[in-house]
Amino acid sequence: MGDSFGQLFRITTWGESHGGGVGVVIDGCPSGLPLSEDDLQYELDRRRPGQSKITTQRKESDTAKILSGVFEGRTTGTAISVMVSNEDAKSHAYDHLKDLYRPSHADFTYDQKFGFRDWMGGGRSSARETVGRVAAGVIAKKLLYNWSQIQTLAWVEQIHEIKASVDKKSVDKKQIEASIVRCPDPETSTEMIEFIHKVRKSGDSVGGIIRAVVRNVPAGLGEPVFDKLTADLAKALMSLPATRGVEFGLGFDSVKLKGSEHNDAFVMREGTIRTNTNRSGGIQGGISNGEDIDLRVSFKPTATINFEQDTVTRDGRAVKLKAKGRHDPCVLPRAVPMVEAMINLVLVDHYLRNQKSRI
Amino acid sequence: MGDSFGQLFRITTWGESHGGGVGVVIDGCPSGLPLSEDDLQYELDRRRPGQSKITTQRKESDTAKILSGVFEGRTTGTAISVMVSNEDAKSHAYDHLKDLYRPSHADFTYDQKFGFRDWMGGGRSSARETVGRVAAGVIAKKLLYNWSQIQTLAWVEQIHEIKASVDKKSVDKKQIEASIVRCPDPETSTEMIEFIHKVRKSGDSVGGIIRAVVRNVPAGLGEPVFDKLTADLAKALMSLPATRGVEFGLGFDSVKLKGSEHNDAFVMREGTIRTNTNRSGGIQGGISNGEDIDLRVSFKPTATINFEQDTVTRDGRAVKLKAKGRHDPCVLPRAVPMVEAMINLVLVDHYLRNQKSRI
Amino acid sequence: MGDSFGQLFRITTWGESHGGGVGVVIDGCPSGLPLSEDDLQYELDRRRPGQSKITTQRKESDTAKILSGVFEGRTTGTAISVMVSNEDAKSHAYDHLKDLYRPSHADFTYDQKFGFRDWMGGGRSSARETVGRVAAGVIAKKLLYNWSQIQTLAWVEQIHEIKASVDKKSVDKKQIEASIVRCPDPETSTEMIEFIHKVRKSGDSVGGIIRAVVRNVPAGLGEPVFDKLTADLAKALMSLPATRGVEFGLGFDSVKLKGSEHNDAFVMREGTIRTNTNRSGGIQGGISNGEDIDLRVSFKPTATINFEQDTVTRDGRAVKLKAKGRHDPCVLPRAVPMVEAMINLVLVDHYLRNQKSRI
Amino acid sequence: MGDSFGQLFRITTWGESHGGGVGVVIDGCPSGLPLSEDDLQYELDRRRPGQSKITTQRKESDTAKILSGVFEGRTTGTAISVMVSNEDAKSHAYDHLKDLYRPSHADFTYDQKFGFRDWMGGGRSSARETVGRVAAGVIAKKLLYNWSQIQTLAWVEQIHEIKASVDKKSVDKKQIEASIVRCPDPETSTEMIEFIHKVRKSGDSVGGIIRAVVRNVPAGLGEPVFDKLTADLAKALMSLPATRGVEFGLGFDSVKLKGSEHNDAFVMREGTIRTNTNRSGGIQGGISNGEDIDLRVSFKPTATINFEQDTVTRDGRAVKLKAKGRHDPCVLPRAVPMVEAMINLVLVDHYLRNQKSRI
Repeated sequence: MGDSFGQLFRITTWGESHGGGVGVVIDGCPSGLPLSEDDLQYELDRRRPGQSKITTQRKESDTAKILSGVFEGRTTGTAISVMVSNEDAKSHAYDHLKDLYRPSHADFTYDQKFGFRDWMGGGRSSARETVGRVAAGVIAKKLLYNWSQIQTLAWVEQIHEIKASVDKKSVDKKQIEASIVRCPDPETSTEMIEFIHKVRKSGDSVGGIIRAVVRNVPAGLGEPVFDKLTADLAKALMSLPATRGVEFGLGFDSVKLKGSEHNDAFVMREGTIRTNTNRSGGIQGGISNGEDIDLRVSFKPTATINFEQDTVTRDGRAVKLKAKGRHDPCVLPRAVPMVEAMINLVLVDHYLRNQKSRI
Repeated sequence: MGDSFGQLFRITTWGESHGGGVGVVIDGCPSGLPLSEDDLQYELDRRRPGQSKITTQRKESDTAKILSGVFEGRTTGTAISVMVSNEDAKSHAYDHLKDLYRPSHADFTYDQKFGFRDWMGGGRSSARETVGRVAAGVIAKKLLYNWSQIQTLAWVEQIHEIKASVDKKSVDKKQIEASIVRCPDPETSTEMIEFIHKVRKSGDSVGGIIRAVVRNVPAGLGEPVFDKLTADLAKALMSLPATRGVEFGLGFDSVKLKGSEHNDAFVMREGTIRTNTNRSGGIQGGISNGEDIDLRVSFKPTATINFEQDTVTRDGRAVKLKAKGRHDPCVLPRAVPMVEAMINLVLVDHYLRNQKSRI
Repeated sequence: MGDSFGQLFRITTWGESHGGGVGVVIDGCPSGLPLSEDDLQYELDRRRPGQSKITTQRKESDTAKILSGVFEGRTTGTAISVMVSNEDAKSHAYDHLKDLYRPSHADFTYDQKFGFRDWMGGGRSSARETVGRVAAGVIAKKLLYNWSQIQTLAWVEQIHEIKASVDKKSVDKKQIEASIVRCPDPETSTEMIEFIHKVRKSGDSVGGIIRAVVRNVPAGLGEPVFDKLTADLAKALMSLPATRGVEFGLGFDSVKLKGSEHNDAFVMREGTIRTNTNRSGGIQGGISNGEDIDLRVSFKPTATINFEQDTVTRDGRAVKLKAKGRHDPCVLPRAVPMVEAMINLVLVDHYLRNQKSRI
Repeated sequence: MGDSFGQLFRITTWGESHGGGVGVVIDGCPSGLPLSEDDLQYELDRRRPGQSKITTQRKESDTAKILSGVFEGRTTGTAISVMVSNEDAKSHAYDHLKDLYRPSHADFTYDQKFGFRDWMGGGRSSARETVGRVAAGVIAKKLLYNWSQIQTLAWVEQIHEIKASVDKKSVDKKQIEASIVRCPDPETSTEMIEFIHKVRKSGDSVGGIIRAVVRNVPAGLGEPVFDKLTADLAKALMSLPATRGVEFGLGFDSVKLKGSEHNDAFVMREGTIRTNTNRSGGIQGGISNGEDIDLRVSFKPTATINFEQDTVTRDGRAVKLKAKGRHDPCVLPRAVPMVEAMINLVLVDHYLRNQKSRI
């Protein structure tokens, strides 16, 4: 269970690292939205392995095919099925992993839950599963922009201890995409890239923090009690592989302020009620207040490294594991479109849920 | 929408700060569990306002009544309805708040969403809603202990900049409950209590961080893709009022380590496969690995303060707001049972979902 | 599980025949709907036992209390909690049923599922559970009328072999309510009442068929594949106690026609596209076509009778059961408001789901 | 919305009559079940068009491919994706239907809901959508048999006014499959086949009734209130195309009996508690009682006929429609595996939901 996400805009992903392919079924997309395979491809290319020298070199073109739900270029209102075939077929590369547990991977927990596992490239726990999320996220992004010019922007804010300085009010997509690490602060970007290079050569890996803002969010999205916008965004983001934490507005740092320092005063601006500051990150009482949504997600260093590591086999024998060949030194650049996709999926769902909050 | 939580152990809360009362309906509790109103009362008393000098002084006895689902002292397997009547009836105390927006409260966002709002004591957005969660959490706690001796323990780790030093392996409930601030480090506890006192007198408020561990979690809880245990716990915790962030294991600090430093090596211990360290916080690939679950939640300082604040009225007039009378200088001590309840609700749901993961 | 119904307008009922009471929590009602306890009471009185000489004589006033979700006479958009206390307290009347299984009741199946059961008056399987459904149905009815003058009308079409002749185009509520058996054909109504009387005196019971039409249904309600309007109505109606079948339009009789005889031709009427006949009962491909919805539900004879019956005890001993005292000779008159409630609950849910079927 | 079905064994179908193909994603299948494409093919062949001279002659091989969720011949516990490519590509055959509404089809209601529609072969409303259901039903069937030897058997009981005489206790699959109309009463089968032939030649169509029994159902499946087994089966069956009614046990005929004639007495048989008769159809109070489940579903005559029919165009012009070429004179033989699939999907879901009804 658990392969579906969303209430009214519901996606169901399927597929493993190796095997027939990966895909997604999108249920609840309104009819009439122009949609093409090219729309999907742009974001899939941002997520694609091998897109730059600092990501994993797995060879996949990740070409999207729309199998249903689009007729004469527009969505029909019924289930949209998108599929990406798997091409990278080096299944023998995994033979040595068959009977042992890679540290901090899902090998052990899958075995504990299911009794056995697909041991090729992580099987279902592979980050390849996110292909379906990113494809579905494109549709969510298009709907949000179509309805309210809502726009989600994510970037790499920190790699290991290297922190970028970014003006979150003015940063734009072009600045982010200008950097292969997707950090819109050019100097820090260069530093990050060099650092990741060095880490890769040493066979190690690093994590980091992605920051995201959402602009033009109408006030009123999110539900009062359990399905708060913060709660649903937290779930969405924590469902991405390798995430370790999420925070909104000032997040953990809000603890250092007193109420009198943290509260956002209401003021009138251009005839509408706004807050003077945005320490709440655009969400109050779980509902958007019309200010930019502002959040951060942390990713641990990738578990696959080219180091000899201690581990055990399925039957409990202590062994040494040394990963062979390619590894992904830093997932952050490719995680940027994943984060954007998950945010957009949550927002489109809440936008739909909010259609009739008043009679 | 959004008043329900859980898939198989599903709770639905209802009720406002003022009005008939607050309550919860619990759907999916297996039959045969011994359950009494006293069981519920113990945890409700930990959540109750006025329990100590450092919490809000609202007067409520919070007496739980079980209206259905229990027969001759045992759960019947059908819907359990629990109700707590409201007693604190000072509705006039809120007259001055009727037409203005308290900063960083949900007043404005509720109005934007619903067109008007119940302005007495926050209405549905009041932390009083959590009475139902805590009552339901008791049942979850009993089931978890009954099935697997699973035990959740939360405590206050930090208030403002005051951090406790706690051994998370040995800390026990008695140590936590010995402190009215629910910090098991006696010296820090005293310091925190004094600090909250001072903050209260100044009319201000403070936030903090709650840490929780869960012991005796069987490996295998959590679902592969979207309903990861981390994801569902994050949603559950971020649905509590005033939360700003959540993290698991090393959380945001995991970023400072490389993969070779962060990975948890597998070892054999007493005949079973364990990890040598627990930087993952007991969850790998979204599924419990049998180690203690370890997480942290941050709470911002309470929005209600006894300070004059700038705000606007519903029709956009700039005004000064001064909160009158009692306020809650620090929600953290009362949030400890809320955090435990939400964790237990997620775990019992995943325990039930995991009953037939293999044929 | 299974105490909730609906996707966007979701109700959760609770309560047993005896015990604290029965009630419902309604999640997803838009804000701003005028709602009073009197609104609820009118329909609860139509469902109430003891309302006429041909129903069960259980003594209950069934007085509804709204505990949350309504502020200053209007719904707030958050959970509405409604409760009806239990008054009929003859628990000793059930002592002789404690250890045996009443034929065609749920005693045996509840014991098989849950290991024991609340044996007072049927516990959770009592028709008393429908109090919550009828209360929630009132809110659904008001929303549907407010939005589109949608109006659901149900009546008793058949009791045992006595069939009414009713013009489903012109029949109105006044005609239905003029008859205590809720059959709008006056002669047949008299005949039915006399028959039920006779059946009651003999200690026996009878079933019958309820027919319902829904007027002013906009085209477009219902979802393409699984959540067809027919499918969701069928589920709703078959979840009522004692139902044995449901059919739409010509139903089982459609089998006797050929396609050329059954198809509803499209024609223009008053400038809009209509069907010339309505053999489909207002739903085609699972979606409303703007014609009146037309359906029938069958109810078996009530299981409780004042006859000596063969049965067994929990431990498998053959015994004779003789029900004592009051019994309900015919549930049909009281089932009319239940059927209307379930139809309205489905329609309001689909109305909300249809808000954004196009971009 | 509405492309998914089930709570714990959840299927999501996708695909249209023409276009990339049709398929299903199955979420919630436990790990370890042996599964091959051949398993699926057997049931798909029973559903396949062109399987005999009395069904539609559309040319499709309906070859199933498993794209995910099966590793080394066993299910992995994660999402199973099955796809069947579309081969029948006569899209021009539908050009004349583009702008008009076929009577009693979903053309008009889809247009009303979505603003436009995929007009090739019915698009999403095509019975071709049931390919995914039948494929998923195979997995459900295997699980049910594996767990409890539960076995579902459906057959054609009536075509137009021709009724079969079948002993529902002894009828077996071989008898059913021996007849191309899937009626196990040989004489009636011959009569039905001849009748369908005649109807086909005349360009007309006929409906009928399918009966199903389920054997070896353990007592305890089904949930007390809304998710009664009857309710969920009714929804499942009424979601199939062309269904008009469903009934359980004596169904609508139960109305003709009094309580004393209808009640099923409990008796001891071979040491277990059984009912002496099975007028309830194996379900009491919404929960299985261990007797055979017994139900009937009616299908209206197929809407597509080779007759000239009155209809209107999208812009309201009265026109004559004459369907061209092949049509399906009777969907019943192919509906038998669909009915079995839907019953098995409901049962496997309730089996999983019942895993922990007691602590």
